[in-house]
Amino acid sequence: MTEKDGIGIGIIGLGVIAGQVARVLCDKQTELAGQAGCQIILRKIKVLPEDLGRSLAQEIGIQLFTTEADVFFSEPGMDIVVEAIGGEHPALEYLTRAICSGRHVVTSNKEVIAKHGYDLLDLAYRNGVTIRYEASVGGGIPLISRFRHDLVANRIEGIYAIINGTTNYILTRMAEENAEFSVALAKAQELGYAEANPGNDIEGIDAGYKLAILASLAFHTRIRPEDIYREGISRLCSRDFQYARELGLAIKLLAIAKENKGAVEVRVHPVCISQESLLAKVDGVYNAVLVKGDLVGNVLFFGQGAGPLPTSSAVIADVVSAAQDVRTGVPKSKWNLDEECAIKSISDIETRFYIRLNIADRPGVLAQIAGVLGDRNISISSAIQKLADRAAQTAEIVIITHPAMERSMQSALEDLAHLTDVMEVNNFIRVEALS
Amino acid sequence: MTEKDGIGIGIIGLGVIAGQVARVLCDKQTELAGQAGCQIILRKIKVLPEDLGRSLAQEIGIQLFTTEADVFFSEPGMDIVVEAIGGEHPALEYLTRAICSGRHVVTSNKEVIAKHGYDLLDLAYRNGVTIRYEASVGGGIPLISRFRHDLVANRIEGIYAIINGTTNYILTRMAEENAEFSVALAKAQELGYAEANPGNDIEGIDAGYKLAILASLAFHTRIRPEDIYREGISRLCSRDFQYARELGLAIKLLAIAKENKGAVEVRVHPVCISQESLLAKVDGVYNAVLVKGDLVGNVLFFGQGAGPLPTSSAVIADVVSAAQDVRTGVPKSKWNLDEECAIKSISDIETRFYIRLNIADRPGVLAQIAGVLGDRNISISSAIQKLADRAAQTAEIVIITHPAMERSMQSALEDLAHLTDVMEVNNFIRVEALS
Repeated sequence: MTEKDGIGIGIIGLGVIAGQVARVLCDKQTELAGQAGCQIILRKIKVLPEDLGRSLAQEIGIQLFTTEADVFFSEPGMDIVVEAIGGEHPALEYLTRAICSGRHVVTSNKEVIAKHGYDLLDLAYRNGVTIRYEASVGGGIPLISRFRHDLVANRIEGIYAIINGTTNYILTRMAEENAEFSVALAKAQELGYAEANPGNDIEGIDAGYKLAILASLAFHTRIRPEDIYREGISRLCSRDFQYARELGLAIKLLAIAKENKGAVEVRVHPVCISQESLLAKVDGVYNAVLVKGDLVGNVLFFGQGAGPLPTSSAVIADVVSAAQDVRTGVPKSKWNLDEECAIKSISDIETRFYIRLNIADRPGVLAQIAGVLGDRNISISSAIQKLADRAAQTAEIVIITHPAMERSMQSALEDLAHLTDVMEVNNFIRVEALS
Repeated sequence: MTEKDGIGIGIIGLGVIAGQVARVLCDKQTELAGQAGCQIILRKIKVLPEDLGRSLAQEIGIQLFTTEADVFFSEPGMDIVVEAIGGEHPALEYLTRAICSGRHVVTSNKEVIAKHGYDLLDLAYRNGVTIRYEASVGGGIPLISRFRHDLVANRIEGIYAIINGTTNYILTRMAEENAEFSVALAKAQELGYAEANPGNDIEGIDAGYKLAILASLAFHTRIRPEDIYREGISRLCSRDFQYARELGLAIKLLAIAKENKGAVEVRVHPVCISQESLLAKVDGVYNAVLVKGDLVGNVLFFGQGAGPLPTSSAVIADVVSAAQDVRTGVPKSKWNLDEECAIKSISDIETRFYIRLNIADRPGVLAQIAGVLGDRNISISSAIQKLADRAAQTAEIVIITHPAMERSMQSALEDLAHLTDVMEVNNFIRVEALS
């Protein structure tokens, strides 16, 4: 405790996030002191050797920098450690060391929190410090503390989230410009919204980490990234967007978590939602999270889910809160976990479905399809049929079903593929009602 | 401090909000204890004599009730007082008494906070307790603590808020059904969304209270309800909605606060906004608040702005936070106020304008109008002209201007009304760009 001289901060990393955090701590020193009720002083920054030459290092003051973890962690008067290097290792080791040496920690690292959050929270509890990770989900959108504070009186019924800006940008382009996936991805890469190796984003891994964090908080349980059913966006075609539009639907990559009678479903996959829902209007790299609570009803949080400025906003807010902890002591409440709850298998989940089929343009085909679906108690809500290829006498049909079990639909899709008059099952997308 | 026996709560009132809060405190006792890390125990409820006969009083346990303020305030082990009677008096006196007797307080009372929040915060500071009022703005939408915590690193540049459900419901009906104001108001009254005496809502008084609270927090200054420029919605006509729609605009009652170089503008009035903006999609009784911060960019919070369930969600969250204060002590930071900043007069504000005029259907009229506007450096961005009355040879014209000073526009409107060929200036609405 060094309150009389101010609260000391150490930062690990000098990437875009860490650099921006350091800059804000320096530039807004007076304002932050006013908000925190005490000086917040940057004491040490742990960087890689190659960072030392960067102009930012000169700007902040080279005497604050070290490349040695031992030097960093032996800095006196460093009450709070900000970890902003990302990735699992060595971030996990640094966070562990910071906690064990009695520092409060702030991190923007979704992977570490999704994989090791529970153990880190427990470690922090045993060491009498706090761990804050608002920036790990949704960048600058205030989300994490909503579950721990504002929504605390609610039983959370569901979360529906657009929490990956890269995929939302790609899907927005596909919807607005009838672009195919590969073209939209290339554009996203050109603009720096997608990485050269985009798998983490387009396969829903990033969204899965974030959903694991949100669902664990919402349901007071431990959801691991591997508990989450995932499908990416690469199998979507521009014609799916055209059909969806005709049917009053938009296609988004949603991270969904629901709880019902002690069983939780957690999944990340493309979803058709009504064009009238607010989530359908969330375009480009923006993020939005819709939360349903038993008291609060629907609440939605919208904003920039990434980028150095919004993310630094969340990190600094956590630093100011941690500074309060340093001053007043940490509430001695353990993270409250219910027993681990059952995770539903995707097969046991009920949704509506969009299916797109290539069929022979012959009388009676729709009756055959309806028969296959009907055998499994799946009924058709609406259908559009279009002549696809006059020469080949084939047509394309899109069907929206009433709610049905995933298991039944998968079995129906298999049988549909074997019908003589069905050339191909082109795509299927789950349809989600949001209100 | 009675931690060992749990934290004691007293409630003042047994209206819809207070009743729901009492019910949640009883029904969710176990869950709330888990979240707060200690029992939260309802100790006393101060009601009016007529409340004693209500079935809720029997349900909760009549021994908890008193009609005597002296009995209520002498209850031992009552750490937190929840005030939910609304209105200025006697709520202010009860809050003052609670604070002076060393209780933390939680209130949903926008009028008291808007008018006396500064003094109450100061009083609470001097008595070593906290005052929380999340439920005073936006019902269950987490808003208040966003400014004090999550957005703390930001300079807030602007707030654009739909924070009155009654008026938003009326405007939604006018937009969707071409209904006139009086018809939509009657419908709102029938459904219980508007009161028999609707002035507080439709004249923007309620929204003004809420804006005073939000702007004071956002700009760290003291904004009084009387600082806010207000116009209600009763002069809007269904044809304004039709023209707006043709121009790609929606009409909403917005509460707006902006800060620029130490001068603040705070105003509540009907505004034309782009149909593409998220605020334009906020329909019915829902509320939404868009905040622009220098780091975070645009963030938007959406949800139910009123109603017993959402409001109780916010009150209970405040109670749980106050319980933490009881356990760990209150951070000794005073509410940080900058010097009072200058409030801009409405005349000094620059926006674009929508103006609707009834004119003679004669050549040269538009030139005359453009001349009057041009004399004040107001240029026209777009215009729609329609034949209004063939027999009378009059037409209606709607003009959207480029940004202009309110002062110039008011003077232009006066001159336009005096032009021989202008029969009437039917309406004018400010146009706001949100991104």
